[in-house]
Amino acid sequence: MARFIKKSKHEIGISPDELLFRGEQKIDNVLLRIIDFDANNLEENAMATVNEVLKYQEKDTVTWFNVDGIHNTSIMQEIAKGFNLDPLIMADVMNTQSRPMIQEYDNCIYISIKMLRHDEETNLIQVENLSLILTKTVLITFQERKGDVFEPVRGRIRKQKKRIRNSGTDYLAFALLDIVIDNYIYIISEFGEKIETLEENLLLEPKQSVIEDINNYKRELNFLRKNIKPAKEMILNLSKMESDLIEYSTDVHFRELQDNINQANESSDSYREILSDQLNIYHTTISSKLNDIMKFLTIFSVIFIPLTFIAGIYGTNFDVVPELHYEYSYFIMWFVMLSVAIGMLFYFKKRKWF
Amino acid sequence: MARFIKKSKHEIGISPDELLFRGEQKIDNVLLRIIDFDANNLEENAMATVNEVLKYQEKDTVTWFNVDGIHNTSIMQEIAKGFNLDPLIMADVMNTQSRPMIQEYDNCIYISIKMLRHDEETNLIQVENLSLILTKTVLITFQERKGDVFEPVRGRIRKQKKRIRNSGTDYLAFALLDIVIDNYIYIISEFGEKIETLEENLLLEPKQSVIEDINNYKRELNFLRKNIKPAKEMILNLSKMESDLIEYSTDVHFRELQDNINQANESSDSYREILSDQLNIYHTTISSKLNDIMKFLTIFSVIFIPLTFIAGIYGTNFDVVPELHYEYSYFIMWFVMLSVAIGMLFYFKKRKWF
Amino acid sequence: MARFIKKSKHEIGISPDELLFRGEQKIDNVLLRIIDFDANNLEENAMATVNEVLKYQEKDTVTWFNVDGIHNTSIMQEIAKGFNLDPLIMADVMNTQSRPMIQEYDNCIYISIKMLRHDEETNLIQVENLSLILTKTVLITFQERKGDVFEPVRGRIRKQKKRIRNSGTDYLAFALLDIVIDNYIYIISEFGEKIETLEENLLLEPKQSVIEDINNYKRELNFLRKNIKPAKEMILNLSKMESDLIEYSTDVHFRELQDNINQANESSDSYREILSDQLNIYHTTISSKLNDIMKFLTIFSVIFIPLTFIAGIYGTNFDVVPELHYEYSYFIMWFVMLSVAIGMLFYFKKRKWF
Amino acid sequence: MARFIKKSKHEIGISPDELLFRGEQKIDNVLLRIIDFDANNLEENAMATVNEVLKYQEKDTVTWFNVDGIHNTSIMQEIAKGFNLDPLIMADVMNTQSRPMIQEYDNCIYISIKMLRHDEETNLIQVENLSLILTKTVLITFQERKGDVFEPVRGRIRKQKKRIRNSGTDYLAFALLDIVIDNYIYIISEFGEKIETLEENLLLEPKQSVIEDINNYKRELNFLRKNIKPAKEMILNLSKMESDLIEYSTDVHFRELQDNINQANESSDSYREILSDQLNIYHTTISSKLNDIMKFLTIFSVIFIPLTFIAGIYGTNFDVVPELHYEYSYFIMWFVMLSVAIGMLFYFKKRKWF
Amino acid sequence: MARFIKKSKHEIGISPDELLFRGEQKIDNVLLRIIDFDANNLEENAMATVNEVLKYQEKDTVTWFNVDGIHNTSIMQEIAKGFNLDPLIMADVMNTQSRPMIQEYDNCIYISIKMLRHDEETNLIQVENLSLILTKTVLITFQERKGDVFEPVRGRIRKQKKRIRNSGTDYLAFALLDIVIDNYIYIISEFGEKIETLEENLLLEPKQSVIEDINNYKRELNFLRKNIKPAKEMILNLSKMESDLIEYSTDVHFRELQDNINQANESSDSYREILSDQLNIYHTTISSKLNDIMKFLTIFSVIFIPLTFIAGIYGTNFDVVPELHYEYSYFIMWFVMLSVAIGMLFYFKKRKWF
Repeated sequence: MARFIKKSKHEIGISPDELLFRGEQKIDNVLLRIIDFDANNLEENAMATVNEVLKYQEKDTVTWFNVDGIHNTSIMQEIAKGFNLDPLIMADVMNTQSRPMIQEYDNCIYISIKMLRHDEETNLIQVENLSLILTKTVLITFQERKGDVFEPVRGRIRKQKKRIRNSGTDYLAFALLDIVIDNYIYIISEFGEKIETLEENLLLEPKQSVIEDINNYKRELNFLRKNIKPAKEMILNLSKMESDLIEYSTDVHFRELQDNINQANESSDSYREILSDQLNIYHTTISSKLNDIMKFLTIFSVIFIPLTFIAGIYGTNFDVVPELHYEYSYFIMWFVMLSVAIGMLFYFKKRKWF
Repeated sequence: MARFIKKSKHEIGISPDELLFRGEQKIDNVLLRIIDFDANNLEENAMATVNEVLKYQEKDTVTWFNVDGIHNTSIMQEIAKGFNLDPLIMADVMNTQSRPMIQEYDNCIYISIKMLRHDEETNLIQVENLSLILTKTVLITFQERKGDVFEPVRGRIRKQKKRIRNSGTDYLAFALLDIVIDNYIYIISEFGEKIETLEENLLLEPKQSVIEDINNYKRELNFLRKNIKPAKEMILNLSKMESDLIEYSTDVHFRELQDNINQANESSDSYREILSDQLNIYHTTISSKLNDIMKFLTIFSVIFIPLTFIAGIYGTNFDVVPELHYEYSYFIMWFVMLSVAIGMLFYFKKRKWF
Repeated sequence: MARFIKKSKHEIGISPDELLFRGEQKIDNVLLRIIDFDANNLEENAMATVNEVLKYQEKDTVTWFNVDGIHNTSIMQEIAKGFNLDPLIMADVMNTQSRPMIQEYDNCIYISIKMLRHDEETNLIQVENLSLILTKTVLITFQERKGDVFEPVRGRIRKQKKRIRNSGTDYLAFALLDIVIDNYIYIISEFGEKIETLEENLLLEPKQSVIEDINNYKRELNFLRKNIKPAKEMILNLSKMESDLIEYSTDVHFRELQDNINQANESSDSYREILSDQLNIYHTTISSKLNDIMKFLTIFSVIFIPLTFIAGIYGTNFDVVPELHYEYSYFIMWFVMLSVAIGMLFYFKKRKWF
Repeated sequence: MARFIKKSKHEIGISPDELLFRGEQKIDNVLLRIIDFDANNLEENAMATVNEVLKYQEKDTVTWFNVDGIHNTSIMQEIAKGFNLDPLIMADVMNTQSRPMIQEYDNCIYISIKMLRHDEETNLIQVENLSLILTKTVLITFQERKGDVFEPVRGRIRKQKKRIRNSGTDYLAFALLDIVIDNYIYIISEFGEKIETLEENLLLEPKQSVIEDINNYKRELNFLRKNIKPAKEMILNLSKMESDLIEYSTDVHFRELQDNINQANESSDSYREILSDQLNIYHTTISSKLNDIMKFLTIFSVIFIPLTFIAGIYGTNFDVVPELHYEYSYFIMWFVMLSVAIGMLFYFKKRKWF
Repeated sequence: MARFIKKSKHEIGISPDELLFRGEQKIDNVLLRIIDFDANNLEENAMATVNEVLKYQEKDTVTWFNVDGIHNTSIMQEIAKGFNLDPLIMADVMNTQSRPMIQEYDNCIYISIKMLRHDEETNLIQVENLSLILTKTVLITFQERKGDVFEPVRGRIRKQKKRIRNSGTDYLAFALLDIVIDNYIYIISEFGEKIETLEENLLLEPKQSVIEDINNYKRELNFLRKNIKPAKEMILNLSKMESDLIEYSTDVHFRELQDNINQANESSDSYREILSDQLNIYHTTISSKLNDIMKFLTIFSVIFIPLTFIAGIYGTNFDVVPELHYEYSYFIMWFVMLSVAIGMLFYFKKRKWF
């Protein structure tokens, strides 16, 4: 249920280096894939076991080792052992609830970030944890499910002349982070389009459904912001890290990463304000419309009140009501009623009541 | 009464190193327990007097000395004397109103933090002060009542191979702080689940009880935040402390502590915003529903007003009312009334009033 | 009138070292009192003239020289001359409108802070300026009126074994500041109790008087915050000051001062938020109650409208109204009316209008 | 029109060192006045031309050269040339729209600040630009109109013993800035008095005019804050400036300048919050009063509705209405009506509706 | 549609140095223009090809090479090659969605900023990307469309004696940035004038159109702020840059740039607050007006209710209604009705209901 934070009782107090999958399993079998390349050679392969992957560690080439599915503790232990990783890292990889973060170890850098996807059907933002372990020659990535957004990077790797073919694992990691953040911006821009369209409808036809849309967008933007904010912090820490493993943190590409995450943050803030304004516009429009109706109806009733009163007077059965017996009384009554009605209309008009 | 801050007149101006219990006594007798361990040996024992504990000071093993009950001044003085502690520390331990803090002394580090517990019955968050005194070989902890949340740590100590068995008092302290903060997150996630469930009810059936729930959650989140915020500050100061007693502050475990306290803070902020939004949704739904009713009723009355007026006209007793004497007048009146009613309905429909 | 800031035209542009009493005189005659002590000796005395006090300057003992009443320019000049103080200090002492501050001079440190007192009668917070001049052997304090909150410190001085008897003027100054800040917390906790009590009444019986209480508390909390905030800043500057006169600023006692002022600030912020929430609860409760009434009344009227119309129809005096002449018409009318009323009630019930 | 910011199309892109008067001319002829003094001598004079002033540059005395009127480009150029000033300075002096700022040049320091004046008639705050050019021996000040608030400083200069007579141009500049900021506080305290008086009226008689007052005060406080905020920043930069021309920036007088500008800022913030609270009180009072009226009137009408209905029933002209022919029917009707009315009143009372 | 952020799916994950035009094409053919000058010579020319421009690189003169139209990839590549620019720069130039930024390269500095223009017709702010590439002898500027706001700078270049003729490319770049920021201020001041005019109308005649204006201004100010804020950050980074290419960042002209961008930010903030206040005033005025009407109408109806009831009583057809047969009953009824009406008016007046 709780999308914003989840913690079950039995997760409290377990040792931080104990491997325990926390989250919802989204794939049946763990898939292992590698892409191994240098400027001239390229190899793409699915692997059956972790052992087959280990040899790439020794090669000078850049190897991208992608793992889909993070629930299998024994595979995780094999990876940790094979790549000589601190057991803490694997514990973090398996915890889908962890905050986006970056941690430096002796032989690697651990990065985790949230991948966001807008599910058109439920209109909810789906979140998936992405973990990257950056070593000198291998970049290990962990995803919760099969299918990802990294196809453009694979495309760039497949084309021989691209810079990515001449760069190390750090550049590859940046390229992946860049896509993740680009997707943030894409989701926000999708939201943005809907929100800006909403505004036009808002003035034409303020319906209850509009307000539900606004509230949905607000909640989803909140959810988005909660996942993007720590990513910004993480990117900042990445830029301050002085590690042999990262060459590019002073680089222009890296600054673009920062610019993008900033833009994502600022735009989501802008849309938040716009949504708040729209709520106000909605309420103003609705209440102004209601006011118009109530004013009309009240004025309408008020005009009939004295008329009905007059009719009531001459419906009384007193023995002596002199007016009843003049021949033109009935017509005079109509005339008086009309005069009263018109007089009141004039008075209301003069006071600018309608 | 005042949950957020308490200060009675007689507490003003007493010497800061005077031992005075400030708070509500939650246990009858003070309980002393020790767990003493190194990589190979483990001893768990309840102690009758402070004197029995003192010998562990000299041993190279890690000793966790837990005290349940902080109201007994003489025991406090024995501990202070036995462990050679600054009297100020004991004064702070006995003050349940103190802010979470960390203070460095020559021979120890004093840490205090709030343990929170959600009382299902009253729906209130209960707060208990936890004080830790970290010395080279002994970690002294003070709790206000018996029964705690540290069982998982004891479990880890009892298993021989865990890292905790090979580490010092500082790692033990971190493990305890970690559980305290994990409990913050657990409470927030429990709240979160209720809050997110609330949202569904909100749209289906906006009842007065919902608003009371929202206000309760808001108040409890406020209370929680007030206790968590200074803890974040305290953890930050802990990370900046350069002390021989703490080896792990640059460690990954420690960074997890920081990440967790940040996540607790951010999530409570998110839920605050969600609650505010829910309040708005509630008000909008309620007022939109009322508007619908009032509009319907007003339109309904307005339609009858001219009809009743017409009936009134022909209830007058004038001698000369020509219409009264035509044979079909009564039926014509009905026809006119129907026309007026339908005409008005059309007009209102055209102006989109219902 | 203006409690938050006062400045009269003639105060603009006068030389900053000109002695001019700014404020309201709260005492007739200036009272001079000294307490002189070291670890073994203690002397308490009222002094008639400033001259009598000056000799204590030379003694190695700690002397607390307290002045009640700050309106007498000539006494101020005597003190300035006798203790060789910068004339600016005295100008500041005499200005009750000055902001809490700390200023370092060659031979002394000048500290000013606001003492707050909650006046039960008017329900207003009264403010009094406290100035401290810290020299090596004498601490001079200036208060606006007789009677203060420092009795506990005097009590501690009178008891021979207390730390205060073995410490210098700086420790004495800290003890005084500590009491002032403890009083802030005390006032806030008093407010807190009232505010939390208010909440219960709020739901039971939302009266207009409650809202006046809330607004009063808000205004007084505002006033309090305005006086506490600069004190926090002042304490921070005190901690950064590197002066021979202050030994204790790195001390645990001093850190308690900071913790206390922080707690005062945070608690007043918490109560501010609670008050805002209470205002919202009040408005919600009131408007929900009014809605209930209006809904009931409107539904009630609406049910009678068609009934009255029917009665009106058969009150018309047309020659030909066939229904009038059937024997059971009158009873049929009653039956129809009842059916209409019950039908409408069912309809409203079905739409969940009441 | 636009008081908060003004920029006309032709001002865009002109060279920053081009002399162009931007603003509204407030004086016909430029007035040149000097006050020249040292500890023993004093000369006050009006000058006809800039040339006459230049000789004071060479003298060791302190010269205050005041210029009223900044629209005359040729005089400005003479001054720039005579005192060897960067043309940029003069361009800034002539731009009344510039932000309060401080700029260091080789031979002088340029300071600009806004002088504020509360115009009682229009109830608006009038703003006038003050520019100060601080050189070793001459302080040049530029004002937009004749007549200023600096008379107290002139008074202090005229009295021989004052510190100002023994100090340099920097002290004189501080004295002028001090008066400008004192005037900020004076204006705020004037506003404050009115605002605090408003509060009493608010509860007694909430009139529409009150809300206009509140909105006026809000707008003027906004305007004030916009002009004060950059001044605070400017004073801060002044304190960080390391220049031979300023001796006093570490001085107590200078710290008072900072305290005053802070107090001005904080007080205007406090009053802003008070005004917001007052708006809320106003709305609450108004709406609570309206609710009372509407409730009374609705209850009143509702009581008559069934009564009128009963009367209507017995106004029908059915041939057979048995009740009509009992002798006491009319009186029974009255009795039933009374019972219904009283019953309803009891019911409403029981539900606490009035 | 989405004005605040745009990202299409196919833009995700492409290599950062790939040249791809992102945005809306606003010009058919790319225009190349140069202005080449030193203190004595001046040449202005339109160029047909990039090749013709390259020779100016070698000359010692300052060359401003302006490119209108950024959609042509091959021209971009020629420029990158001819001026030996990093391909990343050109990718950024062609991305109209990029955030204002500054990036230092070995042989140049890349600056991008948004040019804003208020379109009177649509009442929307139009945004155009301006990119500057600053090399030692050539300043290359890229604009999205023909026609710009830099005419005043060209004017200053054409006049021989201006400082710009004696300065380098950095001063020219500053002059251009200065105009861009001046235009921000101009737009804000235009808005400001309209907003301040609005306020007067607001009180005289609160119409629905006013609220639409306010909401439009709010949205446009939001849009403006989103584009100005990063520019402020960019200027700040510019001031911290230590590059051989920039001589003037410590200069007074540069500080004016900072002052202007600050003023733009502060003024837009001020107007934001004013707009929020205006919304409040509008709502208050509207609701206070509606309250007046409703109060009047309700009081009016309430007065007739008992009168109509009385008439109803004497319209009943009971056999025995004694009052009906007194000769003056009818007139007495009128008298009673009048008394009731006047009595109620008095009562309402006394309770200050109108």
